[in-house]
Amino acid sequence: MGDIRLDPMTARWVIISTEKDFGPEGYDIESPVLEGGTCPFCPGSEKLTPPEVDADRPSNTAADTPGWETRTVPNKYPALKNEPELKRTGMGVYDMMNGVGEHEVIVEGIEHDKQLADLDVEQVRKVINVYKRRSLELGRDERFKYVLIFKNYGLAAGASLEHSHTQLISLPIVPRRVTEELECAHRYFDYKERCVFCDIVKQENEYRHREVSENEHFVAFCPFASRSPFEISIVPRVHKAHFTDITEEEIDSFAHILKEVLMRMKVALKDPPYNFIIHTTPLNGNGDESECYHWHVEVMPKLNKIAGFEWGSGFYINPTSPETASKYLREAKI
Amino acid sequence: MGDIRLDPMTARWVIISTEKDFGPEGYDIESPVLEGGTCPFCPGSEKLTPPEVDADRPSNTAADTPGWETRTVPNKYPALKNEPELKRTGMGVYDMMNGVGEHEVIVEGIEHDKQLADLDVEQVRKVINVYKRRSLELGRDERFKYVLIFKNYGLAAGASLEHSHTQLISLPIVPRRVTEELECAHRYFDYKERCVFCDIVKQENEYRHREVSENEHFVAFCPFASRSPFEISIVPRVHKAHFTDITEEEIDSFAHILKEVLMRMKVALKDPPYNFIIHTTPLNGNGDESECYHWHVEVMPKLNKIAGFEWGSGFYINPTSPETASKYLREAKI
Repeated sequence: MGDIRLDPMTARWVIISTEKDFGPEGYDIESPVLEGGTCPFCPGSEKLTPPEVDADRPSNTAADTPGWETRTVPNKYPALKNEPELKRTGMGVYDMMNGVGEHEVIVEGIEHDKQLADLDVEQVRKVINVYKRRSLELGRDERFKYVLIFKNYGLAAGASLEHSHTQLISLPIVPRRVTEELECAHRYFDYKERCVFCDIVKQENEYRHREVSENEHFVAFCPFASRSPFEISIVPRVHKAHFTDITEEEIDSFAHILKEVLMRMKVALKDPPYNFIIHTTPLNGNGDESECYHWHVEVMPKLNKIAGFEWGSGFYINPTSPETASKYLREAKI
Repeated sequence: MGDIRLDPMTARWVIISTEKDFGPEGYDIESPVLEGGTCPFCPGSEKLTPPEVDADRPSNTAADTPGWETRTVPNKYPALKNEPELKRTGMGVYDMMNGVGEHEVIVEGIEHDKQLADLDVEQVRKVINVYKRRSLELGRDERFKYVLIFKNYGLAAGASLEHSHTQLISLPIVPRRVTEELECAHRYFDYKERCVFCDIVKQENEYRHREVSENEHFVAFCPFASRSPFEISIVPRVHKAHFTDITEEEIDSFAHILKEVLMRMKVALKDPPYNFIIHTTPLNGNGDESECYHWHVEVMPKLNKIAGFEWGSGFYINPTSPETASKYLREAKI
């Protein structure tokens, strides 16, 4: 039993169970540990990956040798293959296209047992700089409409390797969730001539009961209509539609809050599997997104099973209210 | 690597990995077994549930005593509480309503260790009749916009009890996935003046390479843009927008194909956890849904983890093509 809340970012309704309102002890959190074997992301194993496409390394070291601080390589098992031409085909009622896209892996540091939360802020800053650099690079290809940056940590969150890494996929389509957010942001802007995300940041920052952390350039909070328990949004205070417009100063701020949020989650939820995704506007959009859309990050610890009800209906039941979740996260001793 | 396919029912793009194209052995299928203890759904335990709201039972047996063949009770832990009045509230940028809705459980038979696939067709027919009866009953309440019928089987699919059961929830909102399907069906109808589902049934029935089974009134197939491996759609041949318009004769046909599909899945995938959902039009719709929408069932075995990429982006990668999946299901020895 609980409230039914509307997410103003997606116009999605969510049942928030304010009665159960589980704390971390209400979940059977799966250990994120994965299998051993030779790690292809450790220094010295560079030959186990496809050749690097980007690296933070001193100029006196050769590509695909040790000495790097971050290293980006094509995914060995890509979801999409980079075929030279995008072809669309119809087959009766159906439509398809060939799987054109790049799929890359950013290795975030040299230490096998340090996750993103454990890296020092300076290293997190380097990682975010790689996100920006690779997004800009992949975004130059006109076949692509979107660059998706996401992280899977732990088996239950879809990771298959332990060594801390982020993935990038460039896509010839805009993902559904982004289209939904864009439509919603457009409707809000048409009505109010304000950005819905700017209004949310302002309201959360005043209300404070769902806030997890804040700094000069960012606010982190558990969203009002969280679909899953302990979900966290990190939203820049300054209105910018595209992630790649982030400045050096903002990157520094982002590194601080990202590390802090991940560390709070690690402590409060005992190192849970999680995913995060950077939501940004499509490449080569029609321009009016810049007024109404606002890039942000969605962080989702993987605590409960998504049942058929949720998945098949698009209607979520969340057994922990964001007010309770943010309290645990704020109070975590980090 | 693979195709990117558009689902004509939802306008959602899905990557189908035709290269990996895993068979059942490619998945680590979780056993659906749940914990023991006294089962509240077994005959003799009627007092462990809230009082029944419906039962197939001889007239000489009292409510909440043994003798029944199917039994429907309010969910002991409802997602929504049936408050007398629906109240909507705004809070700055946010909107919410109170959790008005009924949440019921249909116990499908008296035998604890028989799942829906194992019941004889006559019993499955009775269960489908309960779906219809309870949908009609809950649909009378004008506060509700939708009655959702769904089944979770196995822990990984969100079930918390072993004894075979289905759930019904009446909702004051239309679930997102249904809204999406309605919009998509409308757009198709506006363009072609035909129902997209009718066209799909016709094409699948001619093409046959994705078909799982068919009978007089229904066709079962793995959808062209399946989001998850071994997903199955069961669609009636006759165009009807609302599930509750199903006739006695169609119920008999539906019972046969539902049991067969579940049995094929059980054999081919070694008794996997699964969900199914009946997709139907909203209650008291504006009428024009009856032309363009077409009720159907979505069956989803739970074989792979949904990673953050999929969940946060709404963009799915399916490592088994529907052509391969349906072959395994067709060839299962049942």
